[in-house]
Order: sequence, then structure tokens, then C-alpha cells
Amino acid sequence: MAPDLVLSLNAGSSSLKISLYQRDLSSSAAEPVTLLLTSSISSISAPPAKFSFHLASDTRKSSEAPIDTIKDHDTAFSHFLKALRSQASIDEERIVYICHRVVHGGDYLEPVEITEESYHHIEKLSDLAPLHNGAALSVIKACISALPTAKSIAYFDTSFHRSIPPHISSYAINQEIAKKRGLKKYGFHGLSYSFILRAVSQFLEKPPETLNLILLHLGSGASACAVKDGRSLDTSMGLTPLNGLPGATRSGSIDPSLIFHYTNKAGRITHDPSMAAHVGVTMAEEILNRKAGWKAITGTTDFGVITSKAELENPDPALEARNPFRLAFDLFLDRVLHYIGAYHLKLNCEVDALVFAGGIGERGVEFREIIGQKIACLGYPPIRQDKNLGASAELATVVDISTAEQVSQARAKRILVCKTDEQLEMARECTLDERFWNAA
Amino acid sequence: MAPDLVLSLNAGSSSLKISLYQRDLSSSAAEPVTLLLTSSISSISAPPAKFSFHLASDTRKSSEAPIDTIKDHDTAFSHFLKALRSQASIDEERIVYICHRVVHGGDYLEPVEITEESYHHIEKLSDLAPLHNGAALSVIKACISALPTAKSIAYFDTSFHRSIPPHISSYAINQEIAKKRGLKKYGFHGLSYSFILRAVSQFLEKPPETLNLILLHLGSGASACAVKDGRSLDTSMGLTPLNGLPGATRSGSIDPSLIFHYTNKAGRITHDPSMAAHVGVTMAEEILNRKAGWKAITGTTDFGVITSKAELENPDPALEARNPFRLAFDLFLDRVLHYIGAYHLKLNCEVDALVFAGGIGERGVEFREIIGQKIACLGYPPIRQDKNLGASAELATVVDISTAEQVSQARAKRILVCKTDEQLEMARECTLDERFWNAA
Repeated sequence: MAPDLVLSLNAGSSSLKISLYQRDLSSSAAEPVTLLLTSSISSISAPPAKFSFHLASDTRKSSEAPIDTIKDHDTAFSHFLKALRSQASIDEERIVYICHRVVHGGDYLEPVEITEESYHHIEKLSDLAPLHNGAALSVIKACISALPTAKSIAYFDTSFHRSIPPHISSYAINQEIAKKRGLKKYGFHGLSYSFILRAVSQFLEKPPETLNLILLHLGSGASACAVKDGRSLDTSMGLTPLNGLPGATRSGSIDPSLIFHYTNKAGRITHDPSMAAHVGVTMAEEILNRKAGWKAITGTTDFGVITSKAELENPDPALEARNPFRLAFDLFLDRVLHYIGAYHLKLNCEVDALVFAGGIGERGVEFREIIGQKIACLGYPPIRQDKNLGASAELATVVDISTAEQVSQARAKRILVCKTDEQLEMARECTLDERFWNAA
Repeated sequence: MAPDLVLSLNAGSSSLKISLYQRDLSSSAAEPVTLLLTSSISSISAPPAKFSFHLASDTRKSSEAPIDTIKDHDTAFSHFLKALRSQASIDEERIVYICHRVVHGGDYLEPVEITEESYHHIEKLSDLAPLHNGAALSVIKACISALPTAKSIAYFDTSFHRSIPPHISSYAINQEIAKKRGLKKYGFHGLSYSFILRAVSQFLEKPPETLNLILLHLGSGASACAVKDGRSLDTSMGLTPLNGLPGATRSGSIDPSLIFHYTNKAGRITHDPSMAAHVGVTMAEEILNRKAGWKAITGTTDFGVITSKAELENPDPALEARNPFRLAFDLFLDRVLHYIGAYHLKLNCEVDALVFAGGIGERGVEFREIIGQKIACLGYPPIRQDKNLGASAELATVVDISTAEQVSQARAKRILVCKTDEQLEMARECTLDERFWNAA
């Protein structure tokens, strides 16, 4: 077989998600890539790690198995390669490109092929995101050593936001220091937003550059993005993914002086062994990224559990004082509404669609319903109960849960749910990138 | 003369503003207090301090004089007492109550008379706001020693926000630590917001408890507040006045991890002599409160200068990359719009008025005009050019600069300018407070 496969890797601090695609640019193909298989490794830093491997052609549900030999991202990737041969009979030499999701891309505006030089540059800019880039860097190293014939490409979550204008991306701080140290709003979840923008454009049958959207990527990391004329205008995350909406273990925006009243060791370097590899992580960053969020309020990172225990049917406002699940639910709702209101105005009230994505965005039926009620006053059409209930079960990538007329109406303020897929986005971009395949 | 005077003191880190009022509860009086004189001392920490003293009956403009003997807030107050006798022939024994504006009131929900106990409590909670309460505490001490017969009452900028519900005032952090250390959104500028709410209620001839308002107190410290049914629902400042909108030397909201990338000494205690009296001020808090804001972008704290140099007539978006005044102007505008959009939605789009107050709010003609254009899409009526231009010169406390029909219309979304007065607010509240005068 010709070398025609693209591997997409998405490394979290304790997980690795893998998708393998076949390039197919024939005119009969609906998409330039076809998914062959997926694999995922979780609990890497809390062994035994759990491994799953699933062929796209297999209609059965995939199962997870604990694997003792997986100790880190390096051994996780080796284990995947073994499964690739034994369970899928795929020769790894067919893999031409490996796409890596890298959270913080600093001033990289485009994906970049990993070379000695670019690797060290990414390593350096990871000082801004030691908690977020570390895993991807380990995986890149593992790939270069295990698959020397494939080329690794870094895709950055920040690139999508390169269009944010300076008066929105700048902080009101000493500008000399800001420039020297790269202290500005970068924004994240860019691969997801890229995917959503393209999918919504196809769904609405309008070119991306004509679209104004409010995008909500709501998962254990959550952010919002205002898209104007198909480009990022503003987003809730900032210099790092810590800013903006709270997440499963992340505080989101807080008073900048809070952490110094939380602990008098805020500026010290953490000695937590799980973070020891990342030089220069302060106690503040550890606490606010890993020991906050709705886990710190409720004890669980699962927003589905929070929703089910929030007693949403009880309208008593005093409930949030005694039910931490209700407090966490209402708090998250409040912060999401805050960004919707702000972005609606920044888009001059001309919004084609509000889009829910991410785990909570896809599955949070009650959450979407309440948001729908709250934004009705801004001219968004009511949510259709049946569509809202069934959205996550639908096979379509984009589902319209609003009652907006289906005829092509200008700025109809639809309410959509989108199944975002960062791995597919990378593989797709890679496959269509003329810089890569022409040179290959 | 009977003891019937109320003194209002408003201490900043390097300034002291003083107003003296006469209590008048006779039915013929429009207001319960009448202003007798004002005095102000500035540049206290950059000697020579400047002193002014102005009788309300004097139609001439007041002038400032440098006074060598003013070294601190204590000597500033002594100098004022001397002027009270020599220039106004007022016997200081007529002063019954001294109202002190205290920025951070922790969990105090009401004004409190200064006793040994309450003084120490305020001192203790000032740990949360060492940069903000210090001056007021010095002045309270000076008053007790110089005017032992008068009673000192502390008025807190936080009290107005006691109605903010937990899901808005809570941060997504460990709740046990949050409760123990009092880490929540308190909100500030409460005396100003109290004044504005009452003034707007009188102007619109509607009871305060029926009003939904978006209040903007825009000065060298700036904040926004959403008022629902006459009570604070949300506000932009947080645990301390640092959060939210940027100010003259204040960063406003930033990524919570930014300061650790700005300096590796963020958590250390500052040794700046001007802050040495305030035990426990970190470098981070010093930098973000005193060395940031539009001063750090443009070199000036004067937003009027920034406005005039921002080349607002030039629509080129690239301008902000080369003109720091334009960058600062657009940045501030963006952040203010962010809160207007968010609060408009949180008030369910049912807004009686958007109110501008504070130095920039009162005098920022261009700023108001641009905001007016941007919020038109939310249903706010256009601004009247002539009214907007003349607003700060008008004698009235509240001026309607919008074209909303003057007939009493439900939720007309008026755009108002209000001359707020924190000293008058305290004197007025004190005069009407039955706890004080019945006991006296």
C-alpha cells in the first residue's frame, strides 16, 4: 500500500487520544480523509492506564483494558503501535504525517513541521503554558523516535485567534514587558473552533467569511469565542487556558489578587511530583488549574452528575446556599451567559448562530434549555424541546435545535449543537495543506 | 449654635476630600443636608501637599496652595480644622458625626459606628484590601484624637453589593478556604452606586425597587454594576477593586497566571516605601494596582488627554498598533462594552437606564457617543448630540442624553449622566439614620 495515512494525536496531561485517517482526494470522496480507527489511553498518571482500540468498521462498542506497561506518553504511544500491527494489520510505514495538537503556539500563526529548530521554539514558548504543552512535547519526541519516516506537524490551539485585534488581545499592563515576554490574550480551543466554523458554514450553506457566530466549547476545559466575518474577534481564555470560564478543575477568571489571599506561597514553585517535570509551575497555577473549578465546589468533575443533583426543578434561590451542585450549575450558567451577552453586543447583535460544543455543549440538555430561555430576549428563537433532547443522539455533525425558519434568512440567530472533532480537523487540514503533500 | 454638622471624609492613598454639611430636616428643606463647605488635600505622598478650602456660599473658583506642614493624612486633617476656624469661623464642636468612606467592609452589611471593637475589626478585614483601607484608617484615628466629642461612622463601598447572589459572588475555588478567608466578590463603588440609584429614581419618578439599571462609575478607578429591582445583582470589581475594568494605574481583569510570567517575584512582599505601612502587599498587587492601567500604556492617567490624542476621527484599525492613546481608548471601550452586553442580558434585556458617572462618565463626551452608537442594536435610543455635549455643564444631578420619549414609558432604556457624590451620600444617609440621631 502507498504511504497515505495521517495520524492525529491529542495529548492531555494524563491522556492520549489517537485517530488514524486515510487520505482520499478522489472526486467521489465527500471528505478528504476517511477515519480508519481510533484509540485512547487514559489515567496515564494514575496507573494502571486504560487502553482502548477501535476500528471504524467495527460496529460493536469499544472496550477499555488496563495496561501495566504504559507508564507515560512514550510507552502509551508504543503500545498503540503494537496494537496497530496486531489488531489492525496496518504497517506503520504507511503513516506519512503525524498531527499533534499543541495547546500553546505563542506567535505561530500556522501549523509548523517539527524540526530541531521548531521543536526547541515550541519548548521555549511552553514556558507560558508549562501545564498544557508538556504532554504534547513528550508525544512528539516519542513519535520521532518510533516512526522516523513520518513527519510530525504541530497544530496550535492559539492560531485560530490570530485575528483578535490588539485592543482586545492586549492587557492594560506595561507594554514593554508585555511585548518582551509575550503577555497577551492568545486564546485556545482553536482547532475545535476551526472545525465548528467549517461545519456550521456547510450546514448553513454560507461561506465562513460571511458568518457571525458565538461559539461555546464547554467541556472540562471551557471557553467562548466571538466569530465576526469568519474570524475570531474575542475569546474568553487568555494568556493561558486558565482565564475565562471555570472548568472541571480550573477556576476561570478570578480577582487577580485572590491567589495571594488564598495562600502565601502563591509564587513558589510547586513540588507536586505529578508536575515536577514542568519546571517553573507556581503553586498559584497548580491550585487554579488543578484544584479549583466545579470539582472544588462539588467534589466531582462530571457536569452531568452536577446537573442531575442540582434540583433544577426547585426555583428557591436559597437552594444554592445549601446545595453545592446547584451553586456550581448556576455559577457556570452565569459565567456562560456573561460571555454570550458580551459577545452578542460585540457582534453588533448580528449573530447567525449560537453554537454549543464540547462534552457539556453536546450533552447538556438542561443547560442548553435554560440558556435558550435566557437569551430569548435578545431575539434568539425558542429551542425545540424534541430537537434539544435528541441532539446528541443524532448522527449529523451539526443539529439545529432552534425554531428558526429553515429558509435561508439573514442572521437568523439559530441555536446549534456541533459535534466537534479536533483530531479530524488536524487530519483534514494536513491532507489539504499544499505545503506538505507537494513537497512529499 | 446647636451641634448639627456632619463631616464627610473620603481618603485616597495620597488624597483627602472633605465636605461639611448642616443637617436640616425641616419640611421646607428639599434635602436633609445642606453643603456648607468643601476642602481637598492632594499629593500627600508627593510633598508639598496641595490644599484647597471652599465655602459653598462663595461663587469664586477655589484655589490650591502648597502646604509644607502636611506630611500625612493626620496632619492634613489638622490643617483642615485650622482652616475651619480661621476661614469659616465654624466651631468644630458643632460637628456631631464624621462619616468615613471605607473601601473594603468585608461582611459589614451596614454602616458602623467606630468603637474600639469595630476599629479593630475593620483593621483586620483590611488584610483583604491593604492598599485601599489604609488611608481611611489613618484618618479615623486622626479624627478620634482631634475631635473626641464627634462620633465616627464607617460607610463601606461593599455594602451596596450585599444583595449579589452566591452563584455570582462565589469563585470556583475550594469553598472551605473561600469561606475561611472571605474570598468572594464583594464589589466596590457602593456609595456612588447608592447615590446614583436614588438620584435616578427621583429623576425617573419611579421607586428604586422597580428599577433595572446598568451603572457605570468610570474614573481613575472604574467599575460597572447591574441593578435589578433596585438591588445590586452583579458588579465588575471582585474580592478587591483590582478586578474588572482597567483604571488609571490598575490592570483590571487579566489571566490569573499572568503576573507569574510578568515577574518571578510576584508573591514577595513589596518594599516600596510608599506602601511600607501596609503590611503584606505583594509585588503582584503593587504592580497590578499601581503600575498598570492606561498609565502603563500611554504614560498619562488623564483619560481626557488619551481621548484627545486617540485620533478618533481616523477609522484605520491599524492605528492602535502605532498610537498607544488609541490602543488605551479602544481597550477601555471594549471592556466597558463587555460589561454592558453581559449586564443587559443578565437583566433580561429589561433596562430602565444606562447611567454614566465618575470623571470619565461625566466628561467623556466622545466615549459616551461611541457607546451610544454601539448599544443602539440592543434597543437603546440614540444619543442627542446637544444634550451629550452639554451634560457636564448642566447643574442638574441627572441629565438624560438620550432621545427616549419623556413620557413615563416602561423600561425605556434611557441613557443618563449622573453627577455622583459619595460624600453627600454618606452625610445624607447619616442624617436620616434613626440609629444615630435618636440615640444622640
